[in-house]
Amino acid sequence: MAFKLTLYVFILICTGISARSRRHLQWFPNVTPMIQPTIGEPWPRPQQMKTYATQFYLDPVTFRFNGSSASCDVLTQAFERYYLLIFESNSARGFGRKRRTVRGTPVLQGMAVKLEKPCQVFEQPSLEMNETYTLDVNSNYAQITATSQWAALRGLETFSQLVHDKNGILVINATSIVDWPRFPHRGVMLDTSLHYIGMPTLLKNLDAMEFNKFNVFHWHMVGDYSFPYQSESFPEMSNKGAFNPYTHIYSQLDIATVLAYARLRGIRVVPEFENPSHTLAWGKGQPGLLTPCYTHGKPDGTLGPIDPALNSTYDFMTRLFTELTRVFPDRYLAIGGSEIDFYCWQNDPEIRKFMKEKGFDDDFVKLEGYYYGRLFDVVSSLDRRVSVWEDSLDSGVKLHKEVIVQVWRGGDTDYPQRLANVTSQGYRTLLSSPWYLNYVQNPYSKQDWKTFYMVNPRNFTGSEKQKELVLGGEACLWTEYVDSTNVLSMLWPRASAVAERLWSAKDVHDVDEAIHRLTEHRCRMVGRGIPAQPATGPGYCKQEYMYT
Amino acid sequence: MAFKLTLYVFILICTGISARSRRHLQWFPNVTPMIQPTIGEPWPRPQQMKTYATQFYLDPVTFRFNGSSASCDVLTQAFERYYLLIFESNSARGFGRKRRTVRGTPVLQGMAVKLEKPCQVFEQPSLEMNETYTLDVNSNYAQITATSQWAALRGLETFSQLVHDKNGILVINATSIVDWPRFPHRGVMLDTSLHYIGMPTLLKNLDAMEFNKFNVFHWHMVGDYSFPYQSESFPEMSNKGAFNPYTHIYSQLDIATVLAYARLRGIRVVPEFENPSHTLAWGKGQPGLLTPCYTHGKPDGTLGPIDPALNSTYDFMTRLFTELTRVFPDRYLAIGGSEIDFYCWQNDPEIRKFMKEKGFDDDFVKLEGYYYGRLFDVVSSLDRRVSVWEDSLDSGVKLHKEVIVQVWRGGDTDYPQRLANVTSQGYRTLLSSPWYLNYVQNPYSKQDWKTFYMVNPRNFTGSEKQKELVLGGEACLWTEYVDSTNVLSMLWPRASAVAERLWSAKDVHDVDEAIHRLTEHRCRMVGRGIPAQPATGPGYCKQEYMYT
Repeated sequence: MAFKLTLYVFILICTGISARSRRHLQWFPNVTPMIQPTIGEPWPRPQQMKTYATQFYLDPVTFRFNGSSASCDVLTQAFERYYLLIFESNSARGFGRKRRTVRGTPVLQGMAVKLEKPCQVFEQPSLEMNETYTLDVNSNYAQITATSQWAALRGLETFSQLVHDKNGILVINATSIVDWPRFPHRGVMLDTSLHYIGMPTLLKNLDAMEFNKFNVFHWHMVGDYSFPYQSESFPEMSNKGAFNPYTHIYSQLDIATVLAYARLRGIRVVPEFENPSHTLAWGKGQPGLLTPCYTHGKPDGTLGPIDPALNSTYDFMTRLFTELTRVFPDRYLAIGGSEIDFYCWQNDPEIRKFMKEKGFDDDFVKLEGYYYGRLFDVVSSLDRRVSVWEDSLDSGVKLHKEVIVQVWRGGDTDYPQRLANVTSQGYRTLLSSPWYLNYVQNPYSKQDWKTFYMVNPRNFTGSEKQKELVLGGEACLWTEYVDSTNVLSMLWPRASAVAERLWSAKDVHDVDEAIHRLTEHRCRMVGRGIPAQPATGPGYCKQEYMYT
Repeated sequence: MAFKLTLYVFILICTGISARSRRHLQWFPNVTPMIQPTIGEPWPRPQQMKTYATQFYLDPVTFRFNGSSASCDVLTQAFERYYLLIFESNSARGFGRKRRTVRGTPVLQGMAVKLEKPCQVFEQPSLEMNETYTLDVNSNYAQITATSQWAALRGLETFSQLVHDKNGILVINATSIVDWPRFPHRGVMLDTSLHYIGMPTLLKNLDAMEFNKFNVFHWHMVGDYSFPYQSESFPEMSNKGAFNPYTHIYSQLDIATVLAYARLRGIRVVPEFENPSHTLAWGKGQPGLLTPCYTHGKPDGTLGPIDPALNSTYDFMTRLFTELTRVFPDRYLAIGGSEIDFYCWQNDPEIRKFMKEKGFDDDFVKLEGYYYGRLFDVVSSLDRRVSVWEDSLDSGVKLHKEVIVQVWRGGDTDYPQRLANVTSQGYRTLLSSPWYLNYVQNPYSKQDWKTFYMVNPRNFTGSEKQKELVLGGEACLWTEYVDSTNVLSMLWPRASAVAERLWSAKDVHDVDEAIHRLTEHRCRMVGRGIPAQPATGPGYCKQEYMYT
């Protein structure tokens, strides 16, 4: 046995070293056992949860949701959605009305949702929304008590995950849950400018986000390579800047669809119109917006960032952002600010002249600060707030104190210092550094979700007050090598690790426990139509994904 | 400019080092330009090809294929398939009969296929099939001259790829092609035992293989984790060894469907029933087959490889392989032989006794050789030949000279030595080491197809005769982390790099040229319904993939 163990350790080390040349890990006589999925365990894990042995049977014929009202479209539609998720993605069997037990199991007649605050028509999810709920299954009527309609959605999702198949009938264990998110901002950032992502895929992704209690879709819509946003004020920008002005755009109807679909799932849509860099595609339909680049004192025909020296720039930004605030209801806009290269600003004689007038000397950080100052004025006048990437703070630009700074540098090793830096200056922050899902970490073992999972967004040196400035984080997917063919399998269930990190309590960090729930959760998503890839090794789902 | 270049190089180096923390490469003012796809260029590149400026218009109403006959189902069905691929995956417009020109472009009335050898009913593709064809488009009737029906399929694929959209009409340039494959064995190995792959996905994959002129589907069907093959002789093996005996099996009908579908595309199906290791799932439905493992002189309840000391083992293998040769028509079977661990053989007193009787002393390689000897006798008596993984040769087992040895160790650096070793012993060989597509190389830049592409299977020290022993190779996909949710996007277009390497001439190795053709080819596959992922950076396809 000792020999066997030694040999095993030796093999593990060797296979670690020559990882690429090995075929699979399990050539030892006793192969790595398949990960056993849990049965009816929720993901992300609730804050407080007790489960009891008593079970209740759910009958698709008699089961009822109660508690909505005509003004509460969010809840009414959620009842329809969760009825289908519970009874159609499982193999449900109905035994008809007025039975008190089925095969000896008492019948759960329905689910009553009580809102502590009545629904308001057209209410939008927000950074401040309350998502705290309780869920009780202990009599023949289950109950959710929710602080808001958004909280009710989280409770319904948990409820749907507790229901499970038992020898061909659907049951739920008696359960008592008190639950709330650790962080108020739990996002997925998806870029749709490097490759276009079609509407069916965007909507499926919102489904998957709801299954993971994500509440922010950070939509990095436009960029250097394409401008798919079909603007009412500037139609030429997508006519000339989209990959194709008919097939590769997001029309106002598309966007309204995404917004409505997301709202019904309690998901905020925060659009990003990144500037002043990464804006090459903007320039195609808006001549004069970008800085002409000079080489040897002459324009070389290429274009750089947005030109901060022209008044026309700010006129344009005012009109564009006025439109955007009409289209997107969220209080927050992401306005970019990453990776600004000063080269073209430095070589443009007009900008040089402008800087001299302003007394900036040769300090291009001052120019950058000037640009942001004017842009923030525009956005503030529209009663909106902004988030930016951390770069401008790094380069020393003075930002307004209400700006949210998104930390994306430093990978999974240096993010604590970066969070400490941003919060020490008093800024609220979002963490993304360790959650760049376009990078496949551990390409051999593939289980990079474990790395994502072990991050702690408050694990840095700083005061309690600083730690409270961490609003949450976002899993990011840049799409250089991603489009509708692979975006959903790249994101899911890898983003699920981030989802649990941002929702569940700090002390939920046992990978060996989580792996079983994640295995169930992955198959649950597959059963609900999301092509979530295997993430925990060999195995199978009761319902496999089917290409149609 | 010099400064700019230096800065650029510096940035490239830095981004290489801190690759994980960077967002994207293109923050330099002039972003990396999008890769422009070619228009109507074939993949893999033909051996000899001349293209001329003259163009012909293809009218969906009048276009005709000619040259098939009633006995030639392969060709008849190919005509239907390629008609649809040409006219439906493009946005074809018909202008009706009896026109000689459309918009000034002469009309191509049809395609005549001439077979040098008539079709034979039920003929199967084989290692020896001839795939040489010529393709001429220089009058108003195109022509393929093919050495066999299989060669005709390759010519039709090329023809379909030459046709392209020009301002809304379909055209083809005058072209003259003489083409043949560099290697006769061009395979994709797919494992369906670590995860189950559903039938729709398997068939889609055969489509993609045809689009890339692959001609072998090496089906690693069963393994440690599951035995999905539904055997007529041993039904208990899938009843007990499959993940689920109803939903996760390949029935005889499923297999017949795969075989027929593959044959119509000129694709051989080489099944792998790997043994004597990686057989744990076999043991579930076939008690007594596997070696019981002993610890401290007692059976410890676990099982090892197939037991080579029992006559019942060879009786079983005879019955199983007799069935397999009835089901699978190909002359070759893959019988495994990888990663045998002697631990359980070493500790089994019955096997010890057997070895003493046979005079093997303590040499377990002799036992392994004995096992293979008897298995080869079984297979030979069934008039079949085999391929094995290289392991047994490594450990010194004497193999029959007709065995094909598949090289899979050594990654993309050590494969030449391994090929030299195998061929120096006179064995025919297949290369797979650098083509393990389950390993994502270059996880940052993602373009690992370039590494696959730059392999040269004859680049090793050895005689010309040795080099001729390289029959080709296979892209391999082990499915620990792969199932129907991501198998097609993992394989395509990464396997396309292997396809061109194995088909095209040795001197076709210019990545900078290939990248443009691959960009077109990837979109061509997407347009034909394969979710082939982006592989060459930001961009778009005319027709994007749609989840339905």
